[in-house]
Amino acid sequence: MVPIGIDDPDDPRVAAYLDIRERDLVGRQGRFIAEGKVVLDMLLSGLRFSAESVLVLENRLAGLADTLRKAPAGLPVFVVAAEVMDRIAGFHMHRGILAIGLKGTDLPAEALLDTLPARALVVVAIGIANHDNMGSIFRNAAAFGADAVLMDDTCCDPLYRKAIRVSVGAALKVPFASFTGTAGFTATLVRHGFEQFALSPRGQTDIRQAKGAERLALYLGTEGEGLPENLLARLHTVRITMSAGFDSLNVAAASAIALHHFSQRGR
Amino acid sequence: MVPIGIDDPDDPRVAAYLDIRERDLVGRQGRFIAEGKVVLDMLLSGLRFSAESVLVLENRLAGLADTLRKAPAGLPVFVVAAEVMDRIAGFHMHRGILAIGLKGTDLPAEALLDTLPARALVVVAIGIANHDNMGSIFRNAAAFGADAVLMDDTCCDPLYRKAIRVSVGAALKVPFASFTGTAGFTATLVRHGFEQFALSPRGQTDIRQAKGAERLALYLGTEGEGLPENLLARLHTVRITMSAGFDSLNVAAASAIALHHFSQRGR
Repeated sequence: MVPIGIDDPDDPRVAAYLDIRERDLVGRQGRFIAEGKVVLDMLLSGLRFSAESVLVLENRLAGLADTLRKAPAGLPVFVVAAEVMDRIAGFHMHRGILAIGLKGTDLPAEALLDTLPARALVVVAIGIANHDNMGSIFRNAAAFGADAVLMDDTCCDPLYRKAIRVSVGAALKVPFASFTGTAGFTATLVRHGFEQFALSPRGQTDIRQAKGAERLALYLGTEGEGLPENLLARLHTVRITMSAGFDSLNVAAASAIALHHFSQRGR
Repeated sequence: MVPIGIDDPDDPRVAAYLDIRERDLVGRQGRFIAEGKVVLDMLLSGLRFSAESVLVLENRLAGLADTLRKAPAGLPVFVVAAEVMDRIAGFHMHRGILAIGLKGTDLPAEALLDTLPARALVVVAIGIANHDNMGSIFRNAAAFGADAVLMDDTCCDPLYRKAIRVSVGAALKVPFASFTGTAGFTATLVRHGFEQFALSPRGQTDIRQAKGAERLALYLGTEGEGLPENLLARLHTVRITMSAGFDSLNVAAASAIALHHFSQRGR
């Protein structure tokens, strides 16, 4: 690995890093931004995605030696002074470690299901539009060994910069795919032998009593509206019993409790 | 309740709301900022704190009628146009609902323990310096009926604006107090008859096997360093078993799992 020094923020070789914040909002044509050492390490481990380039502060380079050893030969590693980094990124980048990842081609949700083992735990996310929540769901999914996250098309992108950061890189590790049409996808999961559970404050079974299954799908909805009634009617519904008068739990916290319950040891 | 129209952002009656973001950082002399309808409702319910004034957008006033009925007679309710609100707050306040709360006098931690019932669940937070995590811990504490949150003096302020918002008002509901010197406080909890459990990735007992107690204290530390070894040596330690290769869980998620386990039904 030969570091490439960059002095000019307008150098075309670092154009992909320009004005990170603004570009987050408009998408970046098949690319995503990875931030920080842990996430870079996950990206370069090549579990699912490949890196296009790395951009680091000169004073961070030595500390990244072990991480960069995982990079494929020829991966450009651009090295800059703090002032140049901030001018490229458009704000103060105190972490000083960025990379561009390539999204690759989307895997259809059913194709992802075909790759799963006989014993499998998957998360089905419906309408999760908040990047913090999406990142936390991926982090919890990784922590409890979920095999995949399937998302309906109203969910936000788990490869958004903040979602990746909050996931501590789990969005680069846990396989995911999107689907259109929840009713059809529920039928697909039935065909693939999944028992399907939905978390809902009005769920029939206290999660403490919910029995697992060899193949299990856990549906998570938004905090405000929750999962639609016509969907709940077709699934096992489980509730997390809360204190009277404060029946409000963040979807990320709820996912932690449910995934912990259904994870390997609980099934 | 007679709304008071304010046209001038420099009107001294709304001085407490000026430049909210900056003032968050320097403290506000015994006051805190409450944002949004749910939090305002919690504040005006007068569970622990009292309000000094309310500032609302003129188009939000009608929707707040039920909430404002809970306010004490004479509470000033300032009403402003959107442009005035933004100029007072120093940024775009799309929620349009703010209030100033009064912190009152701090309760010493031991005095708070004296008020607790025979059967009690308390959280002991050590070194929680992130306002998101603090807010989430309060939200989970409220959801699972914890009776109090006790914090060492390296924790951040749960009445910081963002912590209150993330807690969805639970920071205004669940009693809390600070203490100095963890070793001494652990001894105090022993004297008060508490069984003490610490969450740690290296905990001796899987939380699924942890038996509760009539009076139970749950210690939570920071994600990075965790709880200090000399403290862990004096407590029951419990772990949340995770997937191999990704033993990382956010402290808020961990608190949700542990509080759910130890909450009323689990004890």
